[in-house]
Amino acid sequence: MQSVTATGEQVFDWIDTRADERRRAGLTRQLRPRRADDAVLDLAGNDYLGLSRDKRVNGAAAAAALRWGAGSTGSRLVTGTTELHTELEHALASFCGAQAALVFSSGFAANLGAITALSGKGSAIVTDAYIHASLIDGCRLSRADIAVMDHGDANAIKRALATRRTEHALVVTDSVFSVDGDLAPLPELAEACREHNAGLLIDDAHGFGVLGDGGRGAVAEAGLIKEPNVVTTITLSKSLGAQGGAVLGPRRVIRHLVETARTFIFDTGLAPASVAAALSALNVLKEEPERAERVRTNAMTLAMRLREAGFRVSKPDAAVISVQAPTPAAASEWAEECRGAGVWVGCFRPPSVPDKISRLRLTVRADLTESDIDKAVDIITRCAPPGATQK
Amino acid sequence: MQSVTATGEQVFDWIDTRADERRRAGLTRQLRPRRADDAVLDLAGNDYLGLSRDKRVNGAAAAAALRWGAGSTGSRLVTGTTELHTELEHALASFCGAQAALVFSSGFAANLGAITALSGKGSAIVTDAYIHASLIDGCRLSRADIAVMDHGDANAIKRALATRRTEHALVVTDSVFSVDGDLAPLPELAEACREHNAGLLIDDAHGFGVLGDGGRGAVAEAGLIKEPNVVTTITLSKSLGAQGGAVLGPRRVIRHLVETARTFIFDTGLAPASVAAALSALNVLKEEPERAERVRTNAMTLAMRLREAGFRVSKPDAAVISVQAPTPAAASEWAEECRGAGVWVGCFRPPSVPDKISRLRLTVRADLTESDIDKAVDIITRCAPPGATQK
Repeated sequence: MQSVTATGEQVFDWIDTRADERRRAGLTRQLRPRRADDAVLDLAGNDYLGLSRDKRVNGAAAAAALRWGAGSTGSRLVTGTTELHTELEHALASFCGAQAALVFSSGFAANLGAITALSGKGSAIVTDAYIHASLIDGCRLSRADIAVMDHGDANAIKRALATRRTEHALVVTDSVFSVDGDLAPLPELAEACREHNAGLLIDDAHGFGVLGDGGRGAVAEAGLIKEPNVVTTITLSKSLGAQGGAVLGPRRVIRHLVETARTFIFDTGLAPASVAAALSALNVLKEEPERAERVRTNAMTLAMRLREAGFRVSKPDAAVISVQAPTPAAASEWAEECRGAGVWVGCFRPPSVPDKISRLRLTVRADLTESDIDKAVDIITRCAPPGATQK
Repeated sequence: MQSVTATGEQVFDWIDTRADERRRAGLTRQLRPRRADDAVLDLAGNDYLGLSRDKRVNGAAAAAALRWGAGSTGSRLVTGTTELHTELEHALASFCGAQAALVFSSGFAANLGAITALSGKGSAIVTDAYIHASLIDGCRLSRADIAVMDHGDANAIKRALATRRTEHALVVTDSVFSVDGDLAPLPELAEACREHNAGLLIDDAHGFGVLGDGGRGAVAEAGLIKEPNVVTTITLSKSLGAQGGAVLGPRRVIRHLVETARTFIFDTGLAPASVAAALSALNVLKEEPERAERVRTNAMTLAMRLREAGFRVSKPDAAVISVQAPTPAAASEWAEECRGAGVWVGCFRPPSVPDKISRLRLTVRADLTESDIDKAVDIITRCAPPGATQK
C-alpha cells in the first residue's frame, strides 16, 4: 500500500488511465467558452423563452446586484433570505397554482433536497429508468429502497407500489425527459400514487414555461399541481433564463423542506441578481403567454422538417428534440461540424444517455424565426455522418 | 397499503408528526427575510471580507448581467461556459498557486462533484467526524467504504489509511470546521496521505480569503496547494461575496472533473453576474490583502472579549466563533433577543451540530469597527440565558 517515494505523485495515476479509455471510446468532453457576442445560432441551450438575454430580465438582475449585493451572504436559514426570495416564492406558487414554493440555489439542489427530505431509510422510491441525474443522485442519497422501472411504464410503477413492503413510498419522475423530450404518463402515475398512498415528485424542469396554459408547466396542465401528494420541482435557469431551482407543493411539504432539506439548510442562498432575474422573467411570461406556445410550435416544426430529411427524430412534447447518431464519435463530430457551420447543437453521449445511443440534442426557443429553422435543417443535413438517415 | 378514500390526502401526514416533534424539542426553524436596508449589525453571514456589498463587486455583477445575460443558459459542457467562467478559473488557480480550477454553481455542488469523481465503489474514504454536510453527502453518494474518525484525530486517520483493504483512498476534511471555527491538522493529514498513497480533499470554504498570505487560504498556508495528491474546494459565496464554488487542484484532476463530475455535467453553469462578482472580489482582495488579516484580528478580539465575559467560546482559527448555549431552545431565544437588540447572530442546533451542543455562531468581517465589537459583546451579554456563562 505504501508508495516507495511517498511524494503522492502516483495517487491520481488512475485518472490518466480513465482519460485514455474515454479517448479511445470517443467520449472525451471539453469546455468551449463562448463569447458575449457569439453569432452562432443557439440550438443547444435551455433558454426556451429567450429571456436570458431579455433587457427587462437583465436590467432586473443588474438592479438587484446593486441594491441587494452580489451574494445572499449565507444559508437561507441565517442571512441568505432576502425579501426578494420571499417575493419570488410567492410569485412562483401563485403562478403555478401551488400552495407554496421554496427557492434553492439550483434545480439539482432542489431535487436532492426534496427527495431526501420526503423519503429515507425504510421507505420506498419507485422511478422511471430515464430520470435526470439529479433525481438519481437524490434517490441514492435518500437511503430508501429504490425500484427502477422501464421508461414510460406506468403499470410497472403501479405494480411496484402495490407490492412494496414499506408504509411510505415516493414515485420520482421527470415530466419531460431531458434526452428525448418525451412526456411522462403523469395522469396514470398520479392515479397509481393516489390509489397506493404514495407521494409523487415530478421534475418539471423542461415543462415549466413551455407546457400548460401560459407556460404553467406539465404538472399544472395535467391538473396535478394542487394535489396533496404531489411535489413539483422546477428550474429558474431554463425558461426563466436565470439560475436556481424551486420546489412547489403543499404548504406542509414546503415547511418540512425549510426545516430538513440538507441542500437548503447547508447551502448559500441564491444570489439576489438571479432571484430578481427569475422574478422579472416570470412577469414577462405572464404578460406574453404566447411565448410558451411559440416554443411548442417551433419544436414541432423543426422535428417534422428533420424527420422529412430522413433523420431518426424524437417526437417533441416540449422544447427538446433528439436526433440519433450512429456512434458517439460520429455524434461528436456532427455537432462540431454544425457549430463550425453556424449552428450550435448539443451532443449527448454515454453516460449522459440512458440507452447508450448517442444523439444530437436540439432545443428550440420562442424567438426562433422561420429562417433560423431553415438554416438549422440545412446545416444539420449537410454535416450529417453516413448512417444518420434512415433513407 | 391502500387508502380508503384514495385522495392522497394522508400521504404526507407523517410530516406533521415530525413537525410536532421538532416543535417540542425546540428545534423549529423559520425563514426571516431581510430588507435591503436592514440596519442590524450582521455577525451571522459569511461575507467575511465585506465584499458582498462592495460597490466594485456589485458593479461588476450588474455589468455582467447586462453584457452576458441573466443566466448561463445550460450545462458548462454545452452553452454554460462563457469566457468569464474561464477567466475566473484561471484567476483562482493563479491566486492560490494551484495548477487549475473549476467553477461549480455552489460549494455544495463542488464538494459532491469532487468527492464522487475521486472515489467510488471499491475505494476507501476516511473523514473527520465534524465535516460539513455537503462533504458527508458527497461521501454517501460515492459508494466508497467510509470510515469516520474522531474530530481532529490525525493519528486515527493515519491508522485507518494504513489498515484499509482498498487500493484507492481519499481523506476528506474541512480546513476550518464550520461549527467551532477550528483548524484541521492539515500537515499531519497530508503526511499520512503521502505515506499511505491516498488523496486528500480539503474544503477550504472558511479558510479561503481569511487565512494564508493575502487570504490565499488554509491549504496554501500549509504549503499543500501544489501537492499532486491534494484537491481543494472553496466557495465563491463567503469571502468573495458572490455565489458558487470551485475546485482547485492538479490539472489532471480538474480535467477529470470536467468529464465525470455529475454536479458539473448535469447542472446549469453559474450565472454570469456571480462569476463576475467573484472575479471582481478576487481583484479587490489582491489589491487590499490587509482585509484577510483584519478578519483574523477581529475574530481573536471578539472571542477574547466574550471569553472575558464568562462565555464558553471557541478559539477562532479563522472568522467563525461559537458560543455554547445551555439548550436548543435557550440558543434560539438568545439569538432572537440579540437580533431584537440590534445584533444578528447565527444559531446552530441539532442536527446542524455534530456534538449536539447548541450554540450561538458568530462570524466577523474585515470591516467591523471597535464600536461594532463593543456593541456585540454588550448585547450578547445582556441577552444571555441563565447557564450560558461559566462564572
